[in-house]
Amino acid sequence: MRDVSIIGIGQTQVGEHWDVSIRDLGSQAILAALKDAGIDRPSALYVGNMLSGPLAGQEQLATLLADWSGLRGIEAMKVEAACASGAAALRVGILAVASGWHDLVVVCGVEKMTDADGEEVTLGLMSAADAEYESIHGTSFVSLNAILMRRYMEEYKVAHDAFAGFPINSHANAVHNPYAMFKQAISVETFRQARMIADPINLFDSAPIADGAAAVVLCPTARAREFSHQPVRIAASSVGTDSVALHDRRDPLFLSAVYSSAMKAYQQAGIGPEDIDFLELHDAFSIISALSLEASGFAPRGQGTRLAEEGEIGLHGRLPLATMGGLKARGHPVGATGLYQIVEATLQLRGQAGANQIPRAHWGMTQNIGGVGGTAVTHILEGSD
Amino acid sequence: MRDVSIIGIGQTQVGEHWDVSIRDLGSQAILAALKDAGIDRPSALYVGNMLSGPLAGQEQLATLLADWSGLRGIEAMKVEAACASGAAALRVGILAVASGWHDLVVVCGVEKMTDADGEEVTLGLMSAADAEYESIHGTSFVSLNAILMRRYMEEYKVAHDAFAGFPINSHANAVHNPYAMFKQAISVETFRQARMIADPINLFDSAPIADGAAAVVLCPTARAREFSHQPVRIAASSVGTDSVALHDRRDPLFLSAVYSSAMKAYQQAGIGPEDIDFLELHDAFSIISALSLEASGFAPRGQGTRLAEEGEIGLHGRLPLATMGGLKARGHPVGATGLYQIVEATLQLRGQAGANQIPRAHWGMTQNIGGVGGTAVTHILEGSD
Repeated sequence: MRDVSIIGIGQTQVGEHWDVSIRDLGSQAILAALKDAGIDRPSALYVGNMLSGPLAGQEQLATLLADWSGLRGIEAMKVEAACASGAAALRVGILAVASGWHDLVVVCGVEKMTDADGEEVTLGLMSAADAEYESIHGTSFVSLNAILMRRYMEEYKVAHDAFAGFPINSHANAVHNPYAMFKQAISVETFRQARMIADPINLFDSAPIADGAAAVVLCPTARAREFSHQPVRIAASSVGTDSVALHDRRDPLFLSAVYSSAMKAYQQAGIGPEDIDFLELHDAFSIISALSLEASGFAPRGQGTRLAEEGEIGLHGRLPLATMGGLKARGHPVGATGLYQIVEATLQLRGQAGANQIPRAHWGMTQNIGGVGGTAVTHILEGSD
Repeated sequence: MRDVSIIGIGQTQVGEHWDVSIRDLGSQAILAALKDAGIDRPSALYVGNMLSGPLAGQEQLATLLADWSGLRGIEAMKVEAACASGAAALRVGILAVASGWHDLVVVCGVEKMTDADGEEVTLGLMSAADAEYESIHGTSFVSLNAILMRRYMEEYKVAHDAFAGFPINSHANAVHNPYAMFKQAISVETFRQARMIADPINLFDSAPIADGAAAVVLCPTARAREFSHQPVRIAASSVGTDSVALHDRRDPLFLSAVYSSAMKAYQQAGIGPEDIDFLELHDAFSIISALSLEASGFAPRGQGTRLAEEGEIGLHGRLPLATMGGLKARGHPVGATGLYQIVEATLQLRGQAGANQIPRAHWGMTQNIGGVGGTAVTHILEGSD
């Protein structure tokens, strides 16, 4: 198996892009990544996307994006794993290079959500849940997470305030990220006063719907120095799954897909959670942040909010999280999110994260989650020092 | 790169399955393939599907199918390339095994279309076209193919009757395929009298909407004999793309994605079109059959219908096509079709095709096409003799 590295990255501003279509958005990120790698023509394109069918009436999206990016003819396909679609597409790109089938591959995550009808978006996101046992009863994706958060608060006697640290950290980190959707810091007061979305999830417990695209170029590590002075090595890539429906799990407060995916990743990289210098976690909801930290070995059960409460998740803390704003403040264009995480981790490992730079970052971990923990995709990236 | 073989196959009847959900349909094929391979637990599942989002409100489909098949926890993701989704998913499975990341992988194609509203299905299929330059003008997927067929008939002075051989052959071959949707033979008269769908495409020029699922189990060729007495080797796997929109092509009558994908496949397998013993082609429309034969090197330009007219595409002809009924008569559950082709080719290469058995079949070729030739995925399979 060939070792794989990242040699180029590209991203668009996350926000409301009513003036461009999904093909423009995607190809902006693809072309930026190719330029960063100094490459004209990769031999394959894998696209992470969840909702282009229902929201844009467009499938065969990867072929369309290849053509629109001037790459007509190359291998192309779309990969879907709900909100983990971006990292799942990266996984396919890694398989393509690791296998020896391709030397230069571009992976793009793209989603365009803000100019669709609100109900369409809600129904689209709901397709990440179990259609026949959850959606059919009228639950929304937010309400499923609300059930989880309520159960957590009850079971562990945790107050709602305990979760405040996650969005506060994400918003603080987004201030200096030029690509972030919300560049405003928030206080505990803002969090407390936020309107309720689905009790106990308030506006700041929940990541925003957004438009955006991010892309990376991959090649065999053995060739990486031809294209980049600072290649970033993919030290681990793993996918774990669980039941899609929340009620089918023995213990709903334990994200077993996250656990299995994280444990496989540590094993592949030959390191443990204590070695991770920063974590781009899937903070779609603050409850998912807490549960992910627990399932990934960063916190004991029921204590996922502690790191945040103790101030250890900031840029200079013990475990910096969501270093460029995370899903909460950089924004969450669902199929693109997994690639934003990779682009941001690469910036950190290259020392190009500007005001948000983590000191001495060598091991970066990214975690992209589909549904309410149904699919978890973990990557560990290693900087070249 | 590790060589990859097929060690198990499974399929469901193609038809109208109003009594089962998409998860049941998919897992029936998965469990059948695992049973055929004598395997309990593969380590990854890749699912080819196009329309589960809009038609069943279900994304994260691969994770759901893994769980429903008793495989909770394994790597899972869905792959989409319009009507070529099935073969694209197979491609990912091959990358996974070839890379060394996985030893035992199951790939499933599944689609459930017949119990959705007809307009929803038409709109869903239209998402295989270019949403902003084709669909928006009110074209349907059939009308795009009708434009192509009309142009072909005009340019090459070919009569509509010339295409009759394709559906007649497919229907004849479906008679003895227990999994086929239409087990009735048809005559030239039936073809001539069929009602028009979109002039010049009539009912028999066009493959039916259907429900179905098919699956295969892959492993490294070096291990294949542990699981199967008759492993089938994947000698070539390639993806070609073109513009999605028909009007963007220099020459609409030349399917360049099919051409590039076929030429790469011949090179990988080290053989030419003259060595192919049978071809499972993408006969979604009879015009696509003709154009595919031309672009794949089986017929000169403008003479794609000749093989059919000369009776060379039957089971004992020079180039047997659609040996188990093809998309036209076995049925075309879009995301599943690519895997049905692989399952059928495997049956031929194992000598298990019953009344439809091709004598001395050693090299089988399959071709799965997305959109009006936007994406083409070609595989060449080699029997173990």
